[in-house]
Amino acid sequence: MASIKPSVPKGTRDFSPAEMAKRNFIFDTIKGVFRKYGYQQIETPSMELSDTLLGKYGDEGDKLIFKILDSGDFLEKLDEEELINKIQSENPISSSASFGDKVLHYLRAKGQAQQLQIANSIAPYISEKALRYDLTVPFARYVVMHQNEITFPFKRFQVQPVWRADRPQKGRYREFFQCDADVVGSDSLLNEAEFVLIYDEALSKLGLKDFTIKINNRKILYGIAESIGKTNMFIPITIAIDKLDKIGIKGVEEELTKIGFDVPDIKAISSFLYFGNFKSNEERLNHLESMCGLESSTGAQGIKELREVLSYLNIYPTKTATVEVDITLARGLNYYTGAIFEVKTNEVAMGSIGGGGRYDDLTGMFGLPNLKGVGISFGADRIYDVMEELKLFPEATDRSTQILICCFDKEGEKYALPLLQQLRAKNINTELYPAGAKIKKQMEYANNKQIPYTVIIGSDEMQSGLLTFKNMTSGEQEKLTAEEILDKVFNS
Amino acid sequence: MASIKPSVPKGTRDFSPAEMAKRNFIFDTIKGVFRKYGYQQIETPSMELSDTLLGKYGDEGDKLIFKILDSGDFLEKLDEEELINKIQSENPISSSASFGDKVLHYLRAKGQAQQLQIANSIAPYISEKALRYDLTVPFARYVVMHQNEITFPFKRFQVQPVWRADRPQKGRYREFFQCDADVVGSDSLLNEAEFVLIYDEALSKLGLKDFTIKINNRKILYGIAESIGKTNMFIPITIAIDKLDKIGIKGVEEELTKIGFDVPDIKAISSFLYFGNFKSNEERLNHLESMCGLESSTGAQGIKELREVLSYLNIYPTKTATVEVDITLARGLNYYTGAIFEVKTNEVAMGSIGGGGRYDDLTGMFGLPNLKGVGISFGADRIYDVMEELKLFPEATDRSTQILICCFDKEGEKYALPLLQQLRAKNINTELYPAGAKIKKQMEYANNKQIPYTVIIGSDEMQSGLLTFKNMTSGEQEKLTAEEILDKVFNS
Repeated sequence: MASIKPSVPKGTRDFSPAEMAKRNFIFDTIKGVFRKYGYQQIETPSMELSDTLLGKYGDEGDKLIFKILDSGDFLEKLDEEELINKIQSENPISSSASFGDKVLHYLRAKGQAQQLQIANSIAPYISEKALRYDLTVPFARYVVMHQNEITFPFKRFQVQPVWRADRPQKGRYREFFQCDADVVGSDSLLNEAEFVLIYDEALSKLGLKDFTIKINNRKILYGIAESIGKTNMFIPITIAIDKLDKIGIKGVEEELTKIGFDVPDIKAISSFLYFGNFKSNEERLNHLESMCGLESSTGAQGIKELREVLSYLNIYPTKTATVEVDITLARGLNYYTGAIFEVKTNEVAMGSIGGGGRYDDLTGMFGLPNLKGVGISFGADRIYDVMEELKLFPEATDRSTQILICCFDKEGEKYALPLLQQLRAKNINTELYPAGAKIKKQMEYANNKQIPYTVIIGSDEMQSGLLTFKNMTSGEQEKLTAEEILDKVFNS
Repeated sequence: MASIKPSVPKGTRDFSPAEMAKRNFIFDTIKGVFRKYGYQQIETPSMELSDTLLGKYGDEGDKLIFKILDSGDFLEKLDEEELINKIQSENPISSSASFGDKVLHYLRAKGQAQQLQIANSIAPYISEKALRYDLTVPFARYVVMHQNEITFPFKRFQVQPVWRADRPQKGRYREFFQCDADVVGSDSLLNEAEFVLIYDEALSKLGLKDFTIKINNRKILYGIAESIGKTNMFIPITIAIDKLDKIGIKGVEEELTKIGFDVPDIKAISSFLYFGNFKSNEERLNHLESMCGLESSTGAQGIKELREVLSYLNIYPTKTATVEVDITLARGLNYYTGAIFEVKTNEVAMGSIGGGGRYDDLTGMFGLPNLKGVGISFGADRIYDVMEELKLFPEATDRSTQILICCFDKEGEKYALPLLQQLRAKNINTELYPAGAKIKKQMEYANNKQIPYTVIIGSDEMQSGLLTFKNMTSGEQEKLTAEEILDKVFNS
């Protein structure tokens, strides 16, 4: 067999033991908090039927879905006539041409866009399955399929990889884990407050000391458009407002001019944006209310909802997070219908490390309408990078083995076995280095694996029954009996 | 959007909260034991380059690998000339036919085998990635890619899904988890003994009370062929011997006659098979030694190796498992070079729940020759089924929430928040049911989620400060202050 220089597909990664230990630390912490708040884990298959996924993420999303080539003979079920008709309708050639010539025609068609179209035309005939693109659509499919077994409100979490054929770049991978919690079948705003608390508790536990949970409500955004009587311009207005952070009020006003708003409308819209002059959320909400309260019932409803979420948090406050009403927050706008969340760390420059919101109809696309819900997501890869930069991982994260027993020969190995057994019986992670290696190599092994203690068993030790017990951090050594070692380790 | 009746691809499964809790129980137990023995976790990408996987599992395996359709325009890089030449060489038609007609020719080719061939010919042109088929080949690729970062002996474990386009049937899925541990870069037989102990400890912890770890050595199987001077017939002899369990000695002898052995050879071979008459492993090994000791140096080496593994286990014995030398064990023969393991439960009828062995050259296929290793695998899905049948899962496996606080209205909700906060601060998994639902519905919710305790807060409770604390198992109720509830729960 020819030797191949091994590599992984672009945009994918291996995780080493040290990286796994850190990733497990993040995931275990978040999962623990999800459980504490009553969320239960589910898993769905990596593959979904293409029909389940396609058309749910827009045209751009559809292109980024990884399709799985049908196994076995994927050509067998290719219906020539149907394929010809489909391709013909998109890109006609003489109908008298043979099937082969028609395929050729398309294979040879020029231009990227056209090629893509052909690829898209042929794909459904040779691929009926695709890899999960996010956890939300599979969750919706799950809820509909299992609706009779589920107790609503259904609070579920899910931590699994997703795949996207995005162009890989720094921090953007083609395989990455999503870490989601959602509750469906409840319209109580207590859920929104609980998600703020979940973010707060999980990120605090991970060691973040300064982060902001931004919260908005789509209804307030709608209220801005409503207050000037231009609800049809809701989306463009929101897109302009969303840029406030980057381009300032002047910039937003210029954007609005460009898309055709007149001066009075622009004044009305930008008056909302002075919410940032007010420090407290209550002042901000009062300002917004004074702007849209009378003209927009939807806006007023949004403000009322935000007030209710904050009132829960007045009684049961966050430990670390600053909760901040931010009217410019528009994330996932086409999807969310109520609350919108976004989490940012204030300790390092980094995009959002979490986000989510409320939706009115998760499962309508699968024939179960009006199931309301709200959900959040943790950006695990970014949280990892933040924690690395701030050195927040506990030193011993990947310290799996506690004691390495070292010996010189088979005799030492057999002498060591009962101690090995006793240490493990006390649930101490212990290894015995197989006989035959030089002691230097064994010490290197202990250092590379960050093993804190070693026990060295040579002929002197076997004769006296006093084993060399070495603290690998301090370098200190002492002579102890096996019993003393057991005591020491068990009580340390 | 048209409503689709949702389903999952055949051979794949959703896992509900109850199932996830049980699966986590299994995986967490096994992972904990791996760690205790010094094994460290890695993960590799779900997708590998097709070149990494293809050709590693034989022709049958190659067919079962799920291929991923190239994203974007998968037709762009299809090299017409190269494809024509390849197809032409496999299935010639007139070379003057147009490319289109040639494609047509293949598309229309009759017969399953031929169609498959065409599909296989085209696949590499539209698919460069494939889904992981097992954890061993990706591990080999990992070791070669990261050889300079790895401390050898490298003890790694890996628990990830794999995908196989097998025909789905009861207990056989197209997506399933493998749960592997391997050590590479060590030829010490201590590793073999440790794997026996890992099986023993993990399966004991899962509650299995009667199971057998069968052990063999490929060298003994080779020794049988060697002892009659027919090493070229090693594989057919082994295949016949492997059936001893099912067809008995007479059956094996008939098989051997069929494949052309004469009476003296058959007598020599079947004399080995009387090892089963001896109860103890030592007697069995003595019997085998008397059979092949003088004629076969390889066989004698295999016996010596088995003796050494057993000598470790004499000092550090298994707790529950019976360790049994079984000379008919031939599992993964083409791959293993030394020890061969297989684990069977004796409590229910079920195929092997684990297996593994030693190999001389894991990474040669990727250009790093002679790296020796030994590894094992747990059959998690079968272990799950065994545990279900024996009712071994702890009753509270999927009891995530400990206390549900129930209230009637918004006032009760807000009254409840400080208690909710305090319980969670004590790390008690607690939920507050959002106000507005009937108490019956809230009790049903608690029962369905197997929540053991509820706290009910009505107007009486708020007035008196005495909350109703209900044990959901016994139905008992008592009136307690919030402090008393905290004490009770924290001390229970």
